[in-house]
Amino acid sequence: MTRQELISLIRERKSFLCVGLDTDPAKLPTHLQGTPDAVFQFNRAIIDATIDLCVAYKPNLAFYEALGIDGLRQLKMTMDYLHGLGKPAFTIADAKRGDIGNTSERYARAFLDPQGDFNFDSITVAPYMGADSVQPFMAYPGKWVILLALTSNKGAFDFQLLPTGNTSDSRNSSISSISSTSTPTAIPLYQRVLETSRQWGTDDNLMYVVGATKADMLADVRRLVPDAFLLVPGVGAQGGSLEEVCRHGMTADCGLLVNSSRGIIYASSGNDFAEAARAEALKLQQQMAALL
Amino acid sequence: MTRQELISLIRERKSFLCVGLDTDPAKLPTHLQGTPDAVFQFNRAIIDATIDLCVAYKPNLAFYEALGIDGLRQLKMTMDYLHGLGKPAFTIADAKRGDIGNTSERYARAFLDPQGDFNFDSITVAPYMGADSVQPFMAYPGKWVILLALTSNKGAFDFQLLPTGNTSDSRNSSISSISSTSTPTAIPLYQRVLETSRQWGTDDNLMYVVGATKADMLADVRRLVPDAFLLVPGVGAQGGSLEEVCRHGMTADCGLLVNSSRGIIYASSGNDFAEAARAEALKLQQQMAALL
Repeated sequence: MTRQELISLIRERKSFLCVGLDTDPAKLPTHLQGTPDAVFQFNRAIIDATIDLCVAYKPNLAFYEALGIDGLRQLKMTMDYLHGLGKPAFTIADAKRGDIGNTSERYARAFLDPQGDFNFDSITVAPYMGADSVQPFMAYPGKWVILLALTSNKGAFDFQLLPTGNTSDSRNSSISSISSTSTPTAIPLYQRVLETSRQWGTDDNLMYVVGATKADMLADVRRLVPDAFLLVPGVGAQGGSLEEVCRHGMTADCGLLVNSSRGIIYASSGNDFAEAARAEALKLQQQMAALL
Repeated sequence: MTRQELISLIRERKSFLCVGLDTDPAKLPTHLQGTPDAVFQFNRAIIDATIDLCVAYKPNLAFYEALGIDGLRQLKMTMDYLHGLGKPAFTIADAKRGDIGNTSERYARAFLDPQGDFNFDSITVAPYMGADSVQPFMAYPGKWVILLALTSNKGAFDFQLLPTGNTSDSRNSSISSISSTSTPTAIPLYQRVLETSRQWGTDDNLMYVVGATKADMLADVRRLVPDAFLLVPGVGAQGGSLEEVCRHGMTADCGLLVNSSRGIIYASSGNDFAEAARAEALKLQQQMAALL
């Protein structure tokens, strides 16, 4: 899906909601538990109940991989169902991949190749291994990399916010020798990731993950990537505020995909799980319509 | 496999070789191409030809995922074969995973759970998301995290070698204000990853990836993690030197797993591929026996 198609879909549905399909068999409604392809049945019901209220779906690969090969089979059923619906939705493989070039090429094929089992529109990628670990995911026209910048978890503080200089090798160098060989201002690692990655892609094939739990940092993010789309997890279950995210992160083209997973798909554990999911998605869509 | 079992295996086989199973259908010998389960057949022949010369096997998940669900089925066949052989080998899921805590728990289950489809001894994990993205992989007794520190690719220079201060939030701070709030010496990000992660695990459940192409930095690595096992890719095809790696990285317990993938498994593309793989593995094992 191209950037323009995504923007049009956001305007048409008055929504920038992404529904996270973190489907956990232990949390399925009792009447589905133990039935064949229960994960797919659950996903299909959630999709049918929400597709006119959201613009994106984000299956979290870990939840399918944890079920082994059968889980991936049910993910494929879910993706085949989405592709056959005739109602567009931007699809995100939340897979956090990234490896040396010849290996990232294989991951790109696995998730983005139109001839592959899944044919996602995009994939989340971790930046630690640098340019050649990220660029192979940009080889498919109309497909996207969603690069981790500032994540919504507590561990984000361990490295993402470390002040960094910009020399390429600082072994044993002191701060003073760094300052002499780098910009006068040290910036946090996540901002370095934003800056450096601008050379790898464009606003048409590169988005960023910025957690809603750090909405106050969105102004800094927008200074570095004024027009890039941001995938924002952490609204709801993780405590992020939609208003805060929009205040600091929204652009003229919206520029946001805000994800909610547990808050929507587990709104009820009863037979009414799909209606309850729709009700939660509708609340968010109505807030989004007002904010657009 | 415990640390002591791994050390005993290294002494018994006089080898610290890890064979990387980066199995690519396009590179299979002609007589295997297009045959059922060709990837598994190839892996089985490589394992039979090398298991007495190596201590570990490292399937690269991307190569299996690129083949879709059928590729993962053949990975499971490969792991089932290894588990049934009656000859021990340390198994590494080279998967570069890592996500928020509840998601890393699922990835850990997918790859490390003895009841799961794969039951690997270890998994490679990316550090960018911090403590809660790594620690769930340490929940399985006798299983290991192999954390990315300094990788063998060119992109390693983009972020892993950036000088970092150690304050937890440097937004808009100048180098001088950093130096006042952090250690006087800035250290590269990969060293920060080594330092910080020591609080997450021990030498009994935490190893590190350090690329052979950066062997000159192994002395710095050993200063920070004197006894941790290191998984060293990049010998051979990527140009790293085994002697250099051992000079700077070997400990009294060896402390190294040196990986070779393409150099062994694609030593010949003919009917003699397994014999050729054995010959290449034997060359490395003999060098390793001399270095131990």
